[in-house]
Amino acid sequence: MSRYAYSPQDRAAVYRAIAERRDMRHFLPLPIATEVLERLLTAAHQAPSVGLMQPWRFIRITERSLRHEIHSLVEKERIRTAKAIGEYETTARMAEFLRLKVEGILDCGELLVAALCDNRDQHVFGRRTLPEMDLASVSCAIQNMWLAARAEGLGMGWVSIFDPLELAQLLKMPNGAKPIAILCFGHVDSFYREPMLVETGWKSAQPLEDMLFENGWKPHS
Amino acid sequence: MSRYAYSPQDRAAVYRAIAERRDMRHFLPLPIATEVLERLLTAAHQAPSVGLMQPWRFIRITERSLRHEIHSLVEKERIRTAKAIGEYETTARMAEFLRLKVEGILDCGELLVAALCDNRDQHVFGRRTLPEMDLASVSCAIQNMWLAARAEGLGMGWVSIFDPLELAQLLKMPNGAKPIAILCFGHVDSFYREPMLVETGWKSAQPLEDMLFENGWKPHS
Repeated sequence: MSRYAYSPQDRAAVYRAIAERRDMRHFLPLPIATEVLERLLTAAHQAPSVGLMQPWRFIRITERSLRHEIHSLVEKERIRTAKAIGEYETTARMAEFLRLKVEGILDCGELLVAALCDNRDQHVFGRRTLPEMDLASVSCAIQNMWLAARAEGLGMGWVSIFDPLELAQLLKMPNGAKPIAILCFGHVDSFYREPMLVETGWKSAQPLEDMLFENGWKPHS
Repeated sequence: MSRYAYSPQDRAAVYRAIAERRDMRHFLPLPIATEVLERLLTAAHQAPSVGLMQPWRFIRITERSLRHEIHSLVEKERIRTAKAIGEYETTARMAEFLRLKVEGILDCGELLVAALCDNRDQHVFGRRTLPEMDLASVSCAIQNMWLAARAEGLGMGWVSIFDPLELAQLLKMPNGAKPIAILCFGHVDSFYREPMLVETGWKSAQPLEDMLFENGWKPHS
């Protein structure tokens, strides 16, 4: 046991947030308090970033008409994704996909778009061979918000069903910036007990053991 | 206030882990208890993933010689990165980079390599226009581990200074799989009070306000 370990109750709280966090798509149409949104954004900003690059940018959507335009972009890509699933898999699978709720953009209390900043080429530290580490940093920031939202009793959903060029244009992003997430935050009637894609029977989860190897890509002994 | 909100103490614990997490490079040469490592990996496996893809794979490094080979790969790339910084910025900056400690691979108690799985092309859900969402999912898994480690009183460092092809070859990864992180876990003498790159004067952090926009890429009013 490390002398820096949190108390048993505090440790349990961290593990609880990790275990109970869900990718939510069902929201109650209620607002989120400003100070809560500020706490979530502060949590995001405390994320690690490669070479202290802090590549995250957040666009808060407060205009109702813009929210509808974003919803339309997602709806267009949802249809394109369905067709692709029909081609890669089966038409039955396509129909199953079309029955899933994949976003709660119009209902959620707060809508944010998360993006990678522009002028990323100048950051070499930790990115010379892995330039995509900027996305890793923004993802850590989003995971911070997801866990903080769960502790606040709020749901969050990460929507990645959109064309990034179309969304960048809609939000007047400069060259080099790239939207990577439409984030829905909101009060919920209840949290899914399991990931929604498991609850709906879309997919079953694989056990951790299948993801672990030792000293090379071969099963853990 | 949501009726699903955690108690004030539990909420504070989640925010504390988020605020106190650091990218550590200084470790004490002490082992990590097996049950703690299992809790960290379980936390990783509870991460969200695009279309429930669960693209994360973790290779635990237990052979000392392999640890040294991984360290050598990082050392090679550290020199290449220094040269690139010398070209992009100044030779003074290159010298400054070379004085930084960028990893604790040989000292840490546990060494894991995190990778993206092979056969990722078959996953279309949420990735048709943003195939890099698999990296986002693995990054969320790593952030879970980072926060859990902090609550356990342990440090974690994410090293991305390596050539992914060389590391994939060393660890016998199949085509399509890609290493994205060398993760050092360990006991620490103390946690950095601020990010090490701030403490050493390498870079100053930018405030959250600079990262926020409203309804488009223009300053938050």
